Amino acid sequence: VSTQNSADRPSIAVIAGDGIGPEVVAEGLKVLDAVAGADAFDKVHYDLGADRWLRTGEVLPESEMESLARHDAILLGAVGAAPGDTRIPSGILERGLLLKLRFAFDHYVNLRPSKLFPGVPTPLAPHVTEGKEIDFVVVREGTEGLYAGNGGKLRAGTVHEVATEVSVNTAYGVERVVRFAFEHATKRRHKVTLVHKHNVLVNAGGLWRRIFESVAAEYPQVETDYLHIDAATIFMATDPARFDVLVTDNLFGDIITDLAGAVTGGIGLAASGNLNPSGAFPSMFEPVHGSAPDIAGQQKADPTAAILSVAMMLEHLGRRDEAARIVAAVNADITGRGDQVRTTSEVGDAIAARLA
Amino acid sequence: VSTQNSADRPSIAVIAGDGIGPEVVAEGLKVLDAVAGADAFDKVHYDLGADRWLRTGEVLPESEMESLARHDAILLGAVGAAPGDTRIPSGILERGLLLKLRFAFDHYVNLRPSKLFPGVPTPLAPHVTEGKEIDFVVVREGTEGLYAGNGGKLRAGTVHEVATEVSVNTAYGVERVVRFAFEHATKRRHKVTLVHKHNVLVNAGGLWRRIFESVAAEYPQVETDYLHIDAATIFMATDPARFDVLVTDNLFGDIITDLAGAVTGGIGLAASGNLNPSGAFPSMFEPVHGSAPDIAGQQKADPTAAILSVAMMLEHLGRRDEAARIVAAVNADITGRGDQVRTTSEVGDAIAARLA
Ligand SMILES: CC(C)[C@H](C(=O)O)[C@@H](O)C(=O)O
Ligand SMILES: CC(C)[C@H](C(=O)O)[C@@H](O)C(=O)O
Repeated sequence: VSTQNSADRPSIAVIAGDGIGPEVVAEGLKVLDAVAGADAFDKVHYDLGADRWLRTGEVLPESEMESLARHDAILLGAVGAAPGDTRIPSGILERGLLLKLRFAFDHYVNLRPSKLFPGVPTPLAPHVTEGKEIDFVVVREGTEGLYAGNGGKLRAGTVHEVATEVSVNTAYGVERVVRFAFEHATKRRHKVTLVHKHNVLVNAGGLWRRIFESVAAEYPQVETDYLHIDAATIFMATDPARFDVLVTDNLFGDIITDLAGAVTGGIGLAASGNLNPSGAFPSMFEPVHGSAPDIAGQQKADPTAAILSVAMMLEHLGRRDEAARIVAAVNADITGRGDQVRTTSEVGDAIAARLA
Repeated sequence: VSTQNSADRPSIAVIAGDGIGPEVVAEGLKVLDAVAGADAFDKVHYDLGADRWLRTGEVLPESEMESLARHDAILLGAVGAAPGDTRIPSGILERGLLLKLRFAFDHYVNLRPSKLFPGVPTPLAPHVTEGKEIDFVVVREGTEGLYAGNGGKLRAGTVHEVATEVSVNTAYGVERVVRFAFEHATKRRHKVTLVHKHNVLVNAGGLWRRIFESVAAEYPQVETDYLHIDAATIFMATDPARFDVLVTDNLFGDIITDLAGAVTGGIGLAASGNLNPSGAFPSMFEPVHGSAPDIAGQQKADPTAAILSVAMMLEHLGRRDEAARIVAAVNADITGRGDQVRTTSEVGDAIAARLA
């Protein structure tokens, strides 16, 4: 691993990761080269994930954290062993690598846009989608909540075991992400929906609600809405057009964005950015989907989400033009897809070709 | 309130509750009378919910808890003030009444069946539903997890506030509900899917997984599956026919059953039972939907979920025949509905008429 960050070229850390990660990241980089030229970026590959762990017992050594911190952005494929893989303890890669990066690099905004393009297959009925503009973005908190790793076990492995998980929410953490959501809404359709469960989770929900209302007061031009997480999943299936910007905690954001991906054409299309808006640490871009070990290595994965993650990365790096060109190429590709079955690299080739 | 429980008539406590609760419960009782005769049960109404609280400041006094405990079953409409109602603190009714009953009466199985009937409008596309048998039941844990009310606030109301919510999971609590799910699956299509998020919630998820696997070993004839909650919402939208019995914790169960209700024709159809299988306390039957204050008092609510909850109650009381007759009447009504708009009581009348 080397991170020679030449003064004039931005430097990208690439973590292809597990399962279908390497396949989809390869297409992301192909498209990056096509839009920006092969020499526009330094690209440094990091060998992290299940294979590395099985080989060396290392998840993410401190030295690599330090070099990752010096890049301008991180592109990540997917991380996580197969759920049935008994060699790798559950969560060790997710928590030691993916969540470690999100937390250490203070990625407090996990930005997950969803848009249903005409002609894209969706599991929703025509009466739900036709003639509707389904185009929203979830602003998921990325550094708190139940993801804090704050829990434990008592009498583990016995019939008296007690296992806890603690959702930790701070005014500081909630305020900055809620503020981001409102600011973001001013560039969109001026509506923010808070998703929580404040009638049961009265402490965390009360905090989210209080801060949401106080930030909202600073944005009178932005319409607000509130939904319990259970109701939010209903509307995601029955009326996703009602959403513009959603803001929610780490776990609810995880759940609602997978569902959002599904209803807007599948998580094969869903890109995301783990943003550190201050710029103190590199932001990280990754498809919403996981490592999908069942189809890994078979050229079956859809690389579109990884390619759109590259576009989000370019946007974040201030390269709006290149980002917009990728999005346009992807949209053109998506709308023309129909039922054709293509390999992972054929999809990447087709999108890259539109950029030539 | 009186609870003269005459020796020969089972006694039902009726908590109509808030919003649309009274309207839908009235139809549930109408159908109960139609199938069993008006004198088959003692029915004792309890005045609990938002109105009571506003009038008296009482949520659920101990004396009423004691008399509720003496009934054979409880029928509940809905509980909860309008989200925007500033007179009623968020969660006070949900936690002081609904959750208090579930916890005090040890309703550790929250049974929530979903079935998509032919002709019923669903937000899912024909390619997802047609020719498929969509018929599953969620076994939601009802007495632990994030619903334990175990959390707090530090520096409340300040910019330094920290708010926590603790998910508490015990081997005892998980084992009994997982066992119920497997036992239930032997009476159905012999498949149980565990839904959790064990790659992030490693403590709670690890406990659920360990117990799931050990109970599964006792049921070799039952097929098992595991899905993370985020993936489970995807499949609920793209392939709900894959499910038979799902078992999950209190919060994930809350989320997935609302979505399940939506995809199988709307939560206007979704009934549930909060079961205490030991019989030490009365079980409680209620629609999955909430109090829907926006349409309350307008005869717009669909009472079907409340009526099906009555059927679940009869089944639980060992009155299989009457339960089956209600289900048959509801199915006949549902399949014939088409686009017709009927009032709450017209739907109740129509179903009651089929039982005459
Ligand atoms: C892999 C997992 C830890 C991760 C999460 O839960 O955040 C994933 O589901 C996601 O949404 O990015
Ligand atoms: C009203 C609320 C407390 C309740 C819950 O979250 O359990 C409801 O959503 C349900 O699913 O029965």
